[in-house]
Amino acid sequence: MFNVSLVQRLQEELKANPGSLPFDEILYCNIGNPQSLGQLPITFFREVLALCDHPTILDKAETQGLFSADSIERAWQILDQIPGRATGAYSHSQGIKGLRDTIAAGIEARDGFPANPNDIFLTDGASPAVHMMMQLLISSEKDGILCPIPQYPLYSASIALHGGSLIPYYLDEETGWGLEVSELKKQLEEARSKGISVRALVVINPGNPTGQVLAEENQRDIVEFCKKEGLVLLADEVYQENIYVPEKKFHSFKKVARSMGYGDNDLCLVSFQSVSKGYHGECGKRGGYMEITGFSPEVREQIYKVASVNLCSNISGQILASLVMSPPKVGDESYESYSAEKDGILESLARRAKTLEDAFNSLEGITCNKAEGAMYLFPRIRLPEKAIKAAEAAKTAPDLFYCRHLLNATGVVVVPGSGFGQVPGTWHFRCTILPQEDKIPAIVSRLTDFHKSFMDEYRD
Amino acid sequence: MFNVSLVQRLQEELKANPGSLPFDEILYCNIGNPQSLGQLPITFFREVLALCDHPTILDKAETQGLFSADSIERAWQILDQIPGRATGAYSHSQGIKGLRDTIAAGIEARDGFPANPNDIFLTDGASPAVHMMMQLLISSEKDGILCPIPQYPLYSASIALHGGSLIPYYLDEETGWGLEVSELKKQLEEARSKGISVRALVVINPGNPTGQVLAEENQRDIVEFCKKEGLVLLADEVYQENIYVPEKKFHSFKKVARSMGYGDNDLCLVSFQSVSKGYHGECGKRGGYMEITGFSPEVREQIYKVASVNLCSNISGQILASLVMSPPKVGDESYESYSAEKDGILESLARRAKTLEDAFNSLEGITCNKAEGAMYLFPRIRLPEKAIKAAEAAKTAPDLFYCRHLLNATGVVVVPGSGFGQVPGTWHFRCTILPQEDKIPAIVSRLTDFHKSFMDEYRD
Repeated sequence: MFNVSLVQRLQEELKANPGSLPFDEILYCNIGNPQSLGQLPITFFREVLALCDHPTILDKAETQGLFSADSIERAWQILDQIPGRATGAYSHSQGIKGLRDTIAAGIEARDGFPANPNDIFLTDGASPAVHMMMQLLISSEKDGILCPIPQYPLYSASIALHGGSLIPYYLDEETGWGLEVSELKKQLEEARSKGISVRALVVINPGNPTGQVLAEENQRDIVEFCKKEGLVLLADEVYQENIYVPEKKFHSFKKVARSMGYGDNDLCLVSFQSVSKGYHGECGKRGGYMEITGFSPEVREQIYKVASVNLCSNISGQILASLVMSPPKVGDESYESYSAEKDGILESLARRAKTLEDAFNSLEGITCNKAEGAMYLFPRIRLPEKAIKAAEAAKTAPDLFYCRHLLNATGVVVVPGSGFGQVPGTWHFRCTILPQEDKIPAIVSRLTDFHKSFMDEYRD
Repeated sequence: MFNVSLVQRLQEELKANPGSLPFDEILYCNIGNPQSLGQLPITFFREVLALCDHPTILDKAETQGLFSADSIERAWQILDQIPGRATGAYSHSQGIKGLRDTIAAGIEARDGFPANPNDIFLTDGASPAVHMMMQLLISSEKDGILCPIPQYPLYSASIALHGGSLIPYYLDEETGWGLEVSELKKQLEEARSKGISVRALVVINPGNPTGQVLAEENQRDIVEFCKKEGLVLLADEVYQENIYVPEKKFHSFKKVARSMGYGDNDLCLVSFQSVSKGYHGECGKRGGYMEITGFSPEVREQIYKVASVNLCSNISGQILASLVMSPPKVGDESYESYSAEKDGILESLARRAKTLEDAFNSLEGITCNKAEGAMYLFPRIRLPEKAIKAAEAAKTAPDLFYCRHLLNATGVVVVPGSGFGQVPGTWHFRCTILPQEDKIPAIVSRLTDFHKSFMDEYRD
């Protein structure tokens, strides 16, 4: 993060000398970390986790008064799926079989197509899963991975870490961060002409930092492209629950591929899922999974070996991943409170997204696509020449210059577009929609006032 | 693990056709996974974890009846250390500062020398910490890491993964797996003469798979050696609580170095600790930390960067690591039950170690050093020539041949020495001391009967 130390300094200054800065609190719009900003966990999930952590209270009378009946029932079910009910034991390196069964059933219910528990690898969040796949796909800089620009920098970092080549493809800001297959083709061919063997295509849907949700037809074209070109499709689907517009729906790439009649022999596909995102936002639990289909037994064996290196992912995260894929159902005691919590969070996120989007679009020189999904807006700022010159003089990128001024003037923290990649000569920043709803008006007014005075200062 | 699929097949056979095999259950002596074999978690630790998972019950009346008073108090303390009390948020990439304060205080209490919370990196168990350090120490096959033979194969795997060279040094079986500085010197010089730049020395104390506990004087020689040769000392101290003989005590390498007057400018030192071992054995929680001292700010910055790649370790594991380093104290409500649980486990492990050691030493051609600590015995088998020939004919290593026969005949699972390395021409296997105490007589009698008939069959 570009300005962690600056933010820390400001935070300390606010504490030491209240009133010394032009703002009275830091407003974090920089990281996708909902619970750090006051979002509460889903009660049912936490009840089950607590009971699995301390199962000896399960049959005590007081427990009935403290925990919902279905959380107690679910905890028993989960414990029965764990060999010896030992939540403190290493599990199978892919994760506990019974939990993978539950997740596979959840995927089937979501997609309407079969899912195999042996295709599930439970991981400590999605990041280690991405690293595992990069490790397997990359053996030298001659191995290329097609990645969206802008992109969540986990991908560029992981490709660099494993010594491969990132082959960028640009999302089209004009069409709401559209993913054009013609652009994929162009970049693929260019990479191949340089002797790079392109192994895989990364698609982030819903998009990070761009917030778009792909249309099903677009997904079909992407599947077709991967099949034709023999690319592994790495589908980052961690925001699958975060959709804010009625005209868009999440479709997993597996569902799209299967509905086109493509099975295991047609396409190598990896879907990443995480407990950190969605309406639950359980980042600190480090849970997630990848579902891998279409790989040969030899490659699966390699993936298993890499998964075994750290023995297994944490069991609480495994349990939570199973809960996320099988939440309470109609008729369960917790169903109503669960639904109210979930809908409350998602509806509020949708309102926050819309308010921030409108605010950005009302500002001189800023245009902002809709956050159809995920947790981010990625507005474009057309900076005046004078600002760009001032940034040059200060030896910073113009977007960083803008974001730093914003932070110093308002306490609002956003991330410059250069961290995600952008079309050269364009400038953006990523702003999360995660601050609690009562903070949004302050963010809007601070942003608006700042932007006006910034433009007044630097307008050509 | 050498024979996972064979074990699985036998397990399934036992279920499908009870009575079809010469034994009625598999006896697992292969993995250091105590809770998978029925060891119960420490109540206080689990109480605190459950309360931190579901803090809304903390001030309910029923909670007082279900949880100890000090677990409730501790949960409040921990929540107060977490920004926003958000146990579901990403933390600082080194781990929650307040928990690192607690761990540093625990290290100070253990060693009698200061510890700095900024030197602590919380991790998902010790394995990721080892990988992080290897990633930083190794940039090519010209970078060498001195490792004990026999060794827990995490080290060889991690060095291979990062493309470095393992420089073996042999532990001396004759002197109870002694670690001789003359051997370290010899191997260091040999490696240097081949153009290898030796970066670090790995010491596992107490030893895995060898179970020895280093004498303090020996540790001083090792510290001196590292200082003189400019080596990073990577001290695997995850078994620091597992000591079974009154004549040995655990001393951390940091304490030893500090007591010699060596500070940050004299020695780069990393100590690995885990919640998976000790008397608690919480493998599934994936918690642990490394304490790094003596590194330059630039290297620390690099370590921090690598730690940031996966955002943070899981918060439950972080909390548990703090609990392990600050368990209940005299006067706390839980102190007595906690001590009883802890002592019960450690005393039982000591008895199991002794019983198994004696059993091995009573067998023809087997000699077995004491398990002074850790969780393992590593007996040496002198196999008759005929058995070695039969193994060759079966295209397996002789130790694997023996272990496989043992498994097929008795259901006892141990790991052949070749997985850990051994002096060429010698054969061993690793046997954990973890099966519950009431299983030990069966293990001893099955082992004894098997060994006799094996020797009868193959005796020259």
